[in-house]
Amino acid sequence: MGYTLSEIAAAVGGELFGDPEYTVSALGSLEHATAEQLSFLSNPKFSNLLGCSEAGAVLIRNVQDAEQVRNAIVVRNPYLAFAKVSALFASPGQGWGKVIHPSAVIHSDAKVGMNVTIAPNVSIGAHAEIADGCTIGAGTVIGEQVQIGEKTRLAANVTLYDGVRLGARCIVHSGAVIGADGFGFAPNDGVWVKIHQLGSVCIGEDVEIGANTTIDCGAIDDTIIGNGVKIDNLVQIAHNVVIGDNSAIAGCVGIAGSTVIGKNCTIAGGVGLAGHITLVDNVHITAMSLVTRSIDTPGSYSSGTALDSTQKWRKSAARLRRIESMAAHISKLEKQVNTLLTKG
Amino acid sequence: MGYTLSEIAAAVGGELFGDPEYTVSALGSLEHATAEQLSFLSNPKFSNLLGCSEAGAVLIRNVQDAEQVRNAIVVRNPYLAFAKVSALFASPGQGWGKVIHPSAVIHSDAKVGMNVTIAPNVSIGAHAEIADGCTIGAGTVIGEQVQIGEKTRLAANVTLYDGVRLGARCIVHSGAVIGADGFGFAPNDGVWVKIHQLGSVCIGEDVEIGANTTIDCGAIDDTIIGNGVKIDNLVQIAHNVVIGDNSAIAGCVGIAGSTVIGKNCTIAGGVGLAGHITLVDNVHITAMSLVTRSIDTPGSYSSGTALDSTQKWRKSAARLRRIESMAAHISKLEKQVNTLLTKG
Amino acid sequence: MGYTLSEIAAAVGGELFGDPEYTVSALGSLEHATAEQLSFLSNPKFSNLLGCSEAGAVLIRNVQDAEQVRNAIVVRNPYLAFAKVSALFASPGQGWGKVIHPSAVIHSDAKVGMNVTIAPNVSIGAHAEIADGCTIGAGTVIGEQVQIGEKTRLAANVTLYDGVRLGARCIVHSGAVIGADGFGFAPNDGVWVKIHQLGSVCIGEDVEIGANTTIDCGAIDDTIIGNGVKIDNLVQIAHNVVIGDNSAIAGCVGIAGSTVIGKNCTIAGGVGLAGHITLVDNVHITAMSLVTRSIDTPGSYSSGTALDSTQKWRKSAARLRRIESMAAHISKLEKQVNTLLTKG
Repeated sequence: MGYTLSEIAAAVGGELFGDPEYTVSALGSLEHATAEQLSFLSNPKFSNLLGCSEAGAVLIRNVQDAEQVRNAIVVRNPYLAFAKVSALFASPGQGWGKVIHPSAVIHSDAKVGMNVTIAPNVSIGAHAEIADGCTIGAGTVIGEQVQIGEKTRLAANVTLYDGVRLGARCIVHSGAVIGADGFGFAPNDGVWVKIHQLGSVCIGEDVEIGANTTIDCGAIDDTIIGNGVKIDNLVQIAHNVVIGDNSAIAGCVGIAGSTVIGKNCTIAGGVGLAGHITLVDNVHITAMSLVTRSIDTPGSYSSGTALDSTQKWRKSAARLRRIESMAAHISKLEKQVNTLLTKG
Repeated sequence: MGYTLSEIAAAVGGELFGDPEYTVSALGSLEHATAEQLSFLSNPKFSNLLGCSEAGAVLIRNVQDAEQVRNAIVVRNPYLAFAKVSALFASPGQGWGKVIHPSAVIHSDAKVGMNVTIAPNVSIGAHAEIADGCTIGAGTVIGEQVQIGEKTRLAANVTLYDGVRLGARCIVHSGAVIGADGFGFAPNDGVWVKIHQLGSVCIGEDVEIGANTTIDCGAIDDTIIGNGVKIDNLVQIAHNVVIGDNSAIAGCVGIAGSTVIGKNCTIAGGVGLAGHITLVDNVHITAMSLVTRSIDTPGSYSSGTALDSTQKWRKSAARLRRIESMAAHISKLEKQVNTLLTKG
Repeated sequence: MGYTLSEIAAAVGGELFGDPEYTVSALGSLEHATAEQLSFLSNPKFSNLLGCSEAGAVLIRNVQDAEQVRNAIVVRNPYLAFAKVSALFASPGQGWGKVIHPSAVIHSDAKVGMNVTIAPNVSIGAHAEIADGCTIGAGTVIGEQVQIGEKTRLAANVTLYDGVRLGARCIVHSGAVIGADGFGFAPNDGVWVKIHQLGSVCIGEDVEIGANTTIDCGAIDDTIIGNGVKIDNLVQIAHNVVIGDNSAIAGCVGIAGSTVIGKNCTIAGGVGLAGHITLVDNVHITAMSLVTRSIDTPGSYSSGTALDSTQKWRKSAARLRRIESMAAHISKLEKQVNTLLTKG
């Protein structure tokens, strides 16, 4: 498999400086790429690396850099161009063929569209509907009445509970669990009484869901994930959360029940969001912050403390526990100094 | 499916204000419920919403509020009543029938009780014992010598390692892994020597375990989860942890080895508990706190810092690293001021 | 199953004080061990427990302690000796026999070595190569072109994506997902364009990977896990991370993309590591710390705050948000006091 540079330039809408018939057969990082590989420079800070690169061709932004490399394709946004090119070189596995493996168990009341690939040991429940062009990985379990849009790909060992709806062109990675019961219990004399979770999960189009991520069904209404949302691995999304279009959630994030996240938000790794709060559009939360209140102004927000040596950190942490006392000392000093100044 | 209001009132022990033959066919939130749906008002702060609700009937606490809605059922605890009613409307999937699917692989030495539903592609090991009325979801793997009590439900793609014991009426959600090896290694000249984990996991009755949660087996003795414990998604419970009856653990919590949690504790989302510590009964830990010492007094505990704009947070975090220096400045000032005051 | 004390002493290279023909049939903790069980004392602080133990024999360090117990085996490192003995008592399940279960689906182009055990409902893709002596648990999915070294054990419901390579003698626990797509997208007019992840995951020898842990494939180059690395449950390892030999990663850790961890590091539970940073060898990070910068000096590092009652914590956290103002007050006081001192 390979592409000529003229094909690549056409695919990304770029201007080629070099040999249009030169062929690249894979992608490579600037440092490791060989003469058969295409690379890219997105951060102009690293343009000094260009001269040392063995890459057969490089996607770059500045025309001046073109002469430093074997062949160059100049584009406005090299990182975006690289994303587009990556699709050309992605090779979906074809080992089981474009077929439904005979070991898959498909309920007679389920509907499976055209050109659907179903790997071994899949289970598909009654009244499930799988649109054309979908791919279902081995061991994946699809519950009753699940609806899956066109060209959506479920990796191996995914679980979709009954009634979950997924839009077109989604990607769900292995181990993801969508539609498990929300965590709802009414306390009664020291014992928890289960609130049966009667809602479901509704996921838009072009959504990607990471490995071992969990998205719970709603208690009454549905949990809702907007179009173009990207969710990384090991993320927990509780019942009745709503996530706006094109927001991105990094790994290990936990979002508690009924919280609403706006559009185009980015939530960095390990962040926790309390329940029943609302974040407007274009909010960014930095890694491992805890958000316990609604945010009504776009911008970047943080909590936590900076890293230190454990020895120094122990002292700071102990001192921080006495910060109220420090403040009281300052107040007392201020009064004393004011007295002295007045006297003077 | 539907229930008359007289049936609902009887089920929750409430007093009906309205038409006993009125039928509701589903539950709805106060804001979105239609005339065919039953809703509830648990927080009296929101009683002003009652007048606007289209709900066919509402579970309420105060008799005075009855006239604001189409039909009312007055109960002491509307949230608890709602939990009870939710069970009436829950519909366990029936697509595979009350049978053992022929694709399930059940070892000839395993014992399966009466009225057990086993979905496709399940695997059940030798000497496993599954009591009457259990439901086993598709793709679930049950190891050797596992014991499962009556009416326990395992969702799809659950994994129970050899020897795990689960009490009656438990619910285990998809992707949960119970009984994997605890994380135990002895260091030896820069290399880790595995301590084989020989204990198991013993889980009480009426326990719920969330999706993709992991509970490790004990090193020698067992890991123990008490009766009525509720565990949310993506929780990590290490080897030899003991959790007391009716404690609740929210999503993304991590509990390190040999830690003991009392009864009726609540651990909020993202909390970390160090190993080898003990929490007494009725301890509450707020979200994303780190607990590094035992807690011997009931109450609520926290760590962490409050959210701020990233710009302001950067300054505070940098300043906090110098808090020891601030304290030294205050001490010096106090001495100087005392000198001045003495002189004066 | 049982071993005489002379066999045990030989296995651990220890000196026996007691009856060489005495037989132990299991391991037990010092507190709970019976006369049929072998125990150990690794921390000399607890030597007072020896006199009360019912254990049939105890692995100890100090000869003087030998007379306090029924039988003693004296070794230099009792914890290490215990690790070695634990291997003798570990019983790998044998319920499905040393065979390939007929329900397993193995592609005709896959290569499976000698003495490989494959449990029910496993799926193995085209051109996968599984070396001699491996064990594959039920429901596990092995992608195309995966390579697995000798005697590696995959538990049930593991997922290995296409192209993943695992060395010899690894252990992978249930629910682990290795090789899912890294989280890479190029922003374009408010929409995320997927960067197809073309690298894979390369894992060394003697690596253990915990339940529901996720290790993503690289974007271009591979994600690399060194020899002897031990990874606990629910850990997220992003694309192009490199982990040096014999480092240990505890539960719930998240490591962002392209970060490099040295050899013999220990990362405690719940820690977060930012992307594109480097930790040298022998770095230790304490629980739930966030590391946002490279660390070039071995040692222990921390962030976060100490636990307090929620009531007191609320005040400290609010005060901390005003720490800049506190510092300003101190500066002002210093100037005023200097003025007073000068005057005086």
